[in-house]
Amino acid sequence: MALIVQKFGGTSVANPTKIKAVAERVLASKKKGHRMVVVLSAMAGETNRLVDLANQMQTIPDPREMDVLLASGEQVTVALFAMAVKAAGFNAVSLLGDQVKINTDRMHTRARITSIDQSAIDKYLDQDKVVVVAGFQGVTGDGDLTTLGRGGSDTTAVALAAALKADQCEIFTDVEGVYTADPNVCAAARKLDRISYDEMLELASLGAKVLDIRSVSFAKRYKVPLHVRSTFTQTEGTWVVEETKDMESMLVSGVTYSKNEARITVAKVPDTPGIASRIFTPISAAGIVVDMIIQNTLDGDLTDLTFTVPRTDYDRAMQMLGEVAGEIGANGVSGSRNIAKVSIVGTGMRNHSGIATKMFQVLAGEGINISMISTSEIKISCVIDEKYTELAVRALHEAFGLDRAA
Amino acid sequence: MALIVQKFGGTSVANPTKIKAVAERVLASKKKGHRMVVVLSAMAGETNRLVDLANQMQTIPDPREMDVLLASGEQVTVALFAMAVKAAGFNAVSLLGDQVKINTDRMHTRARITSIDQSAIDKYLDQDKVVVVAGFQGVTGDGDLTTLGRGGSDTTAVALAAALKADQCEIFTDVEGVYTADPNVCAAARKLDRISYDEMLELASLGAKVLDIRSVSFAKRYKVPLHVRSTFTQTEGTWVVEETKDMESMLVSGVTYSKNEARITVAKVPDTPGIASRIFTPISAAGIVVDMIIQNTLDGDLTDLTFTVPRTDYDRAMQMLGEVAGEIGANGVSGSRNIAKVSIVGTGMRNHSGIATKMFQVLAGEGINISMISTSEIKISCVIDEKYTELAVRALHEAFGLDRAA
Repeated sequence: MALIVQKFGGTSVANPTKIKAVAERVLASKKKGHRMVVVLSAMAGETNRLVDLANQMQTIPDPREMDVLLASGEQVTVALFAMAVKAAGFNAVSLLGDQVKINTDRMHTRARITSIDQSAIDKYLDQDKVVVVAGFQGVTGDGDLTTLGRGGSDTTAVALAAALKADQCEIFTDVEGVYTADPNVCAAARKLDRISYDEMLELASLGAKVLDIRSVSFAKRYKVPLHVRSTFTQTEGTWVVEETKDMESMLVSGVTYSKNEARITVAKVPDTPGIASRIFTPISAAGIVVDMIIQNTLDGDLTDLTFTVPRTDYDRAMQMLGEVAGEIGANGVSGSRNIAKVSIVGTGMRNHSGIATKMFQVLAGEGINISMISTSEIKISCVIDEKYTELAVRALHEAFGLDRAA
Repeated sequence: MALIVQKFGGTSVANPTKIKAVAERVLASKKKGHRMVVVLSAMAGETNRLVDLANQMQTIPDPREMDVLLASGEQVTVALFAMAVKAAGFNAVSLLGDQVKINTDRMHTRARITSIDQSAIDKYLDQDKVVVVAGFQGVTGDGDLTTLGRGGSDTTAVALAAALKADQCEIFTDVEGVYTADPNVCAAARKLDRISYDEMLELASLGAKVLDIRSVSFAKRYKVPLHVRSTFTQTEGTWVVEETKDMESMLVSGVTYSKNEARITVAKVPDTPGIASRIFTPISAAGIVVDMIIQNTLDGDLTDLTFTVPRTDYDRAMQMLGEVAGEIGANGVSGSRNIAKVSIVGTGMRNHSGIATKMFQVLAGEGINISMISTSEIKISCVIDEKYTELAVRALHEAFGLDRAA
């Protein structure tokens, strides 16, 4: 008898028919004798409907009230789901974030979980009930409702699994698992049976959408085995687990890409101490996150400073830098929205040299120019012209043999 | 500076535009320096939408989960409303039933308030905030959400006004106040400036829909002055208050009617001890509420037993009584759905005789036959043929001079 946490996203519980189907799926595990905790998102479309209402009330909706509003979405799903389980002849109970209690900090709309009280869940599990928890929401020490932001229901599921010392945490989604590349871009993409937490963290932060990065980081910290799989099939998905010896034989586990960034260059900056601070301080004060940074020293005392920002912040950043460039005596600011970041990720890189060289050769072989490079222990990212994204992904996928099972 | 509780129903907060209008209305009082507590219902249509979803999940939706589901409706309204107040430049905070805390018993879907903790509201009022409370909902000692049933938001408002010792409790609705009769039936109907709690209780229980009976009974017990008025005009409405001397000069305050009942006669019942119990025990065991009962002793040892039941329970009651009649040797069961109960209510009746006689004469004068009569200290009800309802209301309204201000 295992304790299993299962999480279903909004598309899996989009209407009464789908909710009943998910209930049947959960009960299949329940009937095997497992203790079941289910975490649900709001019905697909509901969060957008609520956000739209909020935007009609206030230009920038109050974050505390936004959380009260949004939390109603999961409240509806868990109540309906508990009814579906009861209609099927089993016992169930819904619990909201503040009923569990899932304690968070006070950062409304993107709160972080600080602790979880498992006593209520334990009590209901001991009563042989399916415990249905509203994902995405928590409560502050003052009793104010909070929400966890994008991907919050994944985080709720993993955090619950950690707190309850669950045997496994299953994340049900609309894809079969984690792939070596986006199957929409690369037909040869293959579903991975297993992947390490660290690789998954890199993939998630580099553009893979299947899991939210915070939930993976939670899973890693508390060693929660994650099973990412499809709501709509019975196929085994991908296990996200601790790194094992045999994972190292795979040089590269996946290729991913992101089109969410833009590149900015401040040209011919006088290369004096404190200049980088003059450039980046206003940017970070405006809440704009700078990712990759490259500094090219030119002849004399000048340098070109190139970096990436989220594409949605590009216009704001360009405007701010236009002013700063004048003040610091730079030659001007240029940039492009039309870039992409293509990355390869793999635990095996740690012990093998030449992976980066091979990546650069593959891209060069396709006539793709690399404008920026960044590396970590288990990933290499290259910024390229956006129009070559799919070509680059496919070429790298083939060159590193990802179409063949390890 | 007064403390005012204002309650707005679902039609008053049916969409973002209406919510903004209500916020402006509340702020008009706030700007005068009053401390404002606002109680809101779910947006019109939302509760029906949720009930419909529940009915798709379970034949008889689980009551605990139904309350979790329904409570989401008011949650949406209070969050949006608080945003609207903030957008208008004032401070506001929303509170759900369990955040206030509005403590109730465990009777899900029709819970009763047992106590209210006013400390959270006091704290926010001291911070100069408009406090926006979700109506209709509460919480059990175990932390389970409950709802108060039909008219629950009125009850929340009055209970809060009592707990906070508010100076007044304003119930905003889609009519101008309490009328001497239903204006749709009687064009001469006049809005009452004031009415006593007892009269309002009788009117509410006899068919007037403007206020829920539980909220009036709460107001009476805690001496909360209620002001029933329109959301859509600035006109003074009707004050529901403690009885005063001058109210007694009004013999009759209002005429009301109900078409929600049906009449059943069990004919020629052997008039022996225990017979009434044999007839009514199965009826009450089935949860059917019997209202008026008349027993006519016939020649010999036989009696006709006539009573009213809610019209929705008529078929069930007739079927049960068909069986019982055979068992007890009665002559048969007959009945009619097509009846109406017409009532006159007035504190002044206490000290005046002849009111009932006058009522019977008025109805007789219109050729209307009375099939059942029931009286209390301040009301007289007659059951008549349904088709004469409107005629009876108009005739009584005129005969008792209700078209003329006192």
